Parts: sequence; structure tokens; C-alpha cells
Amino acid sequence: MAIEAQDLADLARGAAFLGSGGGGDPHNGRLLGEAAVARHGPIALIAPESLADTALVVPCGWIGAPTVSAEKLPNGREVVAGLERLERLMGRKVDAVMPIEIGGGNGLAPLVAAAQLGLPVVDADGMGRAFPESQMAIFNIRGLAACPAILTAACGSTIVIENSDNLAHERIARAVAVAMGGIAHMVEYPLTGAQTRENAIRGSVSTAIGIGAAIRQARRDGMDPFVALFEAMRRSALYGHAGALFDGKIVDLERETRAGFSVGRVIVESFGGGDSMEILFQNENLIARRSGRVCAMVPDIITLMDRETADSVTTERLKYGQRVKVIGAAAPRLLRDSRALSVVGPAAFGFSERYRPIEALNGWEKR
Amino acid sequence: MAIEAQDLADLARGAAFLGSGGGGDPHNGRLLGEAAVARHGPIALIAPESLADTALVVPCGWIGAPTVSAEKLPNGREVVAGLERLERLMGRKVDAVMPIEIGGGNGLAPLVAAAQLGLPVVDADGMGRAFPESQMAIFNIRGLAACPAILTAACGSTIVIENSDNLAHERIARAVAVAMGGIAHMVEYPLTGAQTRENAIRGSVSTAIGIGAAIRQARRDGMDPFVALFEAMRRSALYGHAGALFDGKIVDLERETRAGFSVGRVIVESFGGGDSMEILFQNENLIARRSGRVCAMVPDIITLMDRETADSVTTERLKYGQRVKVIGAAAPRLLRDSRALSVVGPAAFGFSERYRPIEALNGWEKR
Repeated sequence: MAIEAQDLADLARGAAFLGSGGGGDPHNGRLLGEAAVARHGPIALIAPESLADTALVVPCGWIGAPTVSAEKLPNGREVVAGLERLERLMGRKVDAVMPIEIGGGNGLAPLVAAAQLGLPVVDADGMGRAFPESQMAIFNIRGLAACPAILTAACGSTIVIENSDNLAHERIARAVAVAMGGIAHMVEYPLTGAQTRENAIRGSVSTAIGIGAAIRQARRDGMDPFVALFEAMRRSALYGHAGALFDGKIVDLERETRAGFSVGRVIVESFGGGDSMEILFQNENLIARRSGRVCAMVPDIITLMDRETADSVTTERLKYGQRVKVIGAAAPRLLRDSRALSVVGPAAFGFSERYRPIEALNGWEKR
Repeated sequence: MAIEAQDLADLARGAAFLGSGGGGDPHNGRLLGEAAVARHGPIALIAPESLADTALVVPCGWIGAPTVSAEKLPNGREVVAGLERLERLMGRKVDAVMPIEIGGGNGLAPLVAAAQLGLPVVDADGMGRAFPESQMAIFNIRGLAACPAILTAACGSTIVIENSDNLAHERIARAVAVAMGGIAHMVEYPLTGAQTRENAIRGSVSTAIGIGAAIRQARRDGMDPFVALFEAMRRSALYGHAGALFDGKIVDLERETRAGFSVGRVIVESFGGGDSMEILFQNENLIARRSGRVCAMVPDIITLMDRETADSVTTERLKYGQRVKVIGAAAPRLLRDSRALSVVGPAAFGFSERYRPIEALNGWEKR
């Protein structure tokens, strides 16, 4: 399939939902993507199955606090500069790119480079949503190496990280992003075509486009966009269960930029009062509790959306008084086995609660 | 000249004094250097004048908090790994190495690599003493570029910094060093032979060896090592004035590791009481005040030394109750012009006092 301007807008909308509140600002990402497509033409989206075993596939994305991503604009050359530097380092051409995470602006980051360099985008990503830390990618969970990785920043600085284990890589990359002004573009986990096929979360880019299209069409047709969203999620091979966890108004918000992350909590109160939901976040929404009872937890998806338009509200865009629905959805199955949960489950974020699937927590199983 | 084991010990002693309390732990540096010389034989020390114009000369040193350097031991491969990586990046062999600063352990860091790689060490350095930040090198003051620079750590991680301006380079390198565990080895400011000749602080390695030898010989002969030190400084073409600023006991010490630096202050009280000297430091001692009156300030050298043995006490080795002399010395002339003072003078460290030379502050001019 060829990704055109309309698809970019749908992808931005879908990735904003799958991002669970994170993945960077989708608005800036969409503008950059649209400019690139307007200039260079449509972008090829290819199935992982079509990759040659030895192809070089490079996940791309922004690292840093989303709060900064919404305010500090890229210069537009970062993604291309990182890929070109990686080509020099590895002594070969990049064959395809892929989002490191299908969330927020990061769902679109590789498309900017793909348009400029004439590369295809693989219909897959490394997280099936967005997560705050690099080692939360499925590639780390499956034992693949993050390095060599390259960070590029608007100021022109280029940083190459080599020989680091995946945890040290995240620590170093985060520190570099902070020192570069709070945000940087990163290419990491360079993969072969075979590794991509075996390990990536497949189909997530086209799924995100489908989700975005469903919301857009429902709005155009005067239908309920939430119904359309849930239907699109249920039809998808990757996700499945999805539904509303809460409906109300933001009455409390704590958010700070700390060590390269946006960290905080938001409280949504029901319109009648008397009931509320608390959501804790680290870039992404991590856990939602209603009157103390857990309704959803990582790696399942928790996204706050404008209750009229179904526009996703990323954690850096949360505001006191916003009227929102809290939407939950099941994470891809790959993220729910015990090996994945040890890296992206509640314990990895310091929560004492044992992981329970969102459909079990909310009695959605019989649907 | 060929540097042998005895010279290494003298260099460690001399560099510890010139380091103004910083430059990293000289003890670990000496042990690594001695092991390298025992295994690979003497190291050639060459005059900057003998370098070919197009030679590739690479300053080396450790970056991070000296407190960490005293506790976290190197694996011994860092310096070599950084130089080899730079050779691959620049597509040519390194012709010679040089200390980025002639202070503490950093006076010896390049000798370890020189011994292992069979390279000569240039009799020069980038600071004529030690300073806490990378951009305080004379090479930055003279407008040369720090990048490409390479950091290597004991864990094996390698970080390449490219295209950064010299201030961003320091910020990024510092953050990387912290993320790598508090200390890393760095090669930076790769120079041509001609640039080295025109800009480096020449003769500082042999001067440091001479200072160390003078102290050693005085101790062996039962003479006053401080008299020998002052005499060696006065004879040197680089420094000149030197003398005791205070004599007493450490009665107060505040020191913390913050953002990759050891920051704090120490108060030395006279034995009779009633008189005291306060010294503020950021890795290196920066300013010394006696009863509020400034006696010495950056870039002049301020080093606390054991009052019996004349062993230099680096800022990470300061202890309550130590009996010390506070020794001051004039910085090399290159560091005292207005361009240099804007980067390494009191204002660069946030002090409001205008720079006055140590010999003027202490009435040494007529000597």
C-alpha cells in the first residue's frame, strides 16, 4: 500500500490512541510527515513477509520527555541524518524503516525519513503501543541488541552509542537526550529482515491507519467515534478488546519533567461527582484505578480522549477541566507472556499489583 | 626523552600538584602507567616542535567526578579502545597522544595508551593544569573543535560525539559520563601537528616530571620538599611564582557529587587558631580566601599538600583533621590573557571578583 496525506492523518490519529498517552506529540509529527509527502510523494508500506532475510531494517523514533516534544520543534533533518550515519557505520544501505513504537509522533517519525530517502516503511513496530524506555521494545525482550544506535538533535549534534548492553544503552541515550535539550531522534535496534519478521509487532502501522480512518469516517458521518474505535480494535488481529473505563472531567493534574520523562498523575471525576479515576503516567499512562480498584495496567493501553471528538489527549496535553473519556484496550498478545511482562508489566514500573488483563478486570471477556 | 617507571612516579607527583586538587586520582593512574611500562617498555616523550604539520595528535583524559575516579577502577582498555575507534572514524592512524590536562590521573592517562600502542607522548597538554570542564581547554579558547570525540567506559560502551559545538560537547559528554557510572575516558580535540605546536601548553609534561623529581629528591636528601617545589616552579619556563598561602588543619569539609562533579568547600584553620582559609572547589580548587580576602583564584593553581611529605591532596581525598599546607602557583601565561580568562577566569565559575594574579595578591612580585 502507498501512504498518502490522508493516511498520514489517519495514522497520526490511530497512533495517538495506541500510544497510551505517549509517543511524543502527534501534531508535529503529522506536519513533518505531510510536508515530506507533499514534496516527495507517497510512501510505500510493505509487509514484513516481503523483506529479504538479510535486509537492513532500522527502527526510528524520538527519545525524551513528550512535554519537550510539544514545544521544541525538530529541524526536520534529524531522522535522515541518523539513518545516513548508520549507513556509514554499518557500511551498507538501509533497506527499510519502521517505527520503534506505534504511538504519538513516533508512529510517524520513520515516514519522514522514508519519504526523503525513498525507503519503504515496514508494517510493524517494536512495541505495539508506546512505552517510556528503550529496553521496553519487543526486540530487547527477545534478546536482540539495541546498539549500534545513533542520536541526532536539532542543533546538529550526532551521538553514536556502541557496545552497550540494552539497559546501559537506555540510560546513556536518555542522558544524551536530556543534554541535547530534552529531545533527540534515535535509530536503534538495527535488524535483519528475518529478525524483523520473527520479532516485530506485525501489522501495527496499517492497524493504526485503520483506527484513525474509522474515527474520521464516524465523525464525518455523524456517528459515535468511540463506537467506531472499539469496533476497529475488535476487528484487528493485534488488539481485540477495547472499551470505555471512565467518563468525566479532569479535576487534578500533577506533572513534572524529571530525568528525561514526563511523570505525574491525573484525576478524572464523574460529572455527577462521587466517583473518580486516578491515572499514573511516565510519558505513557501506566495504571488506572477507580476508587482504588485497578481497571487497567501496563502493558494494556490506557488513553484519555476528548469525549466529543475522540481526539486522543497525550500526557503533555492534559489540562485541568478537560472533559474526557478514559479508553482502555488490550495490548498485543506478544506483550502479555511472562517474559514480556517482566520488562513491560506493572512490576517493571514499580507497581505491586500483579498483572491482570484489561478484559478480565472489566468483565469484557464474554463479549 | 624516554619515560621510565621512575619518571612515571615523578610525573604522577608533579601532575598531582599542577592539577590544583583535580584531574582525577593520581594513584590509580600511576599504577596503570607502571603496569603498561613494565609490560611494553619506556615511552617516548617528544617535543611539539618535532611533530609533522599533518600529524594526528590526540588529547586523552578521564571525564567525571574525581570522587568516582578514586573508587571505580578502569578496566585498562578504555584509552586504547577510544583511540582505535577514533582511527576508524578518521580513517588514519594516530601519530601521538597528549594529556588533555596536566593534572592528577589525567597527566598519566595517555601514557597508558602510548605504551600499549607504541605511540609517543607529546610534551604538552591542553590546560597547563586541570580544569573541571572540557571547554576550558586552550584548544577551545583558541577556537578549535572538540569533535569528533569518543568516550569509552569500563563496561565496554563506546560513545562517539560528532558535530557538536564545544559547549554542547561538554554537556553531552558529562551526561554520558554520569550515565556510564560517573566516569569515562575521553579522546577529544583531535589536532594536527601544526595546531598542537601553535596552541598546546608546551613543555608541561617534562615540567611536571621535573617538579615530581625535585620533591622526591628533597625528601630523599632530608631537605624541605616545599622549598624544592617552589624552586622547581620558579625555574620552569611555564609557571614561575609559587609559594605557601596557608598552613593548618582541615576543620570543615563539605563535598558532594553533583551533575558529574565533586563540588564543595574546605576550611583550613591555623594551628594557633584565630586564622583560617576557605577554599571552594568544583573538582579543582577554584578560589582561596583568608579571612574573606582572596589569596588566589582560577586560573592560578591552588593545591593542598600534606605538610610533612608534600604529597598533594586531591579534592576527593580531603579529610577532616588533615594537616596541610595550601600552596599557590601562577598559571601559565597563556591562561591569563582576556580571551582565556573569559573561559577559565573567576567569572566563568560564577565568582564576582575580578581576576588578579596570585603574585600580585600575595606580594610575590618583588621576589
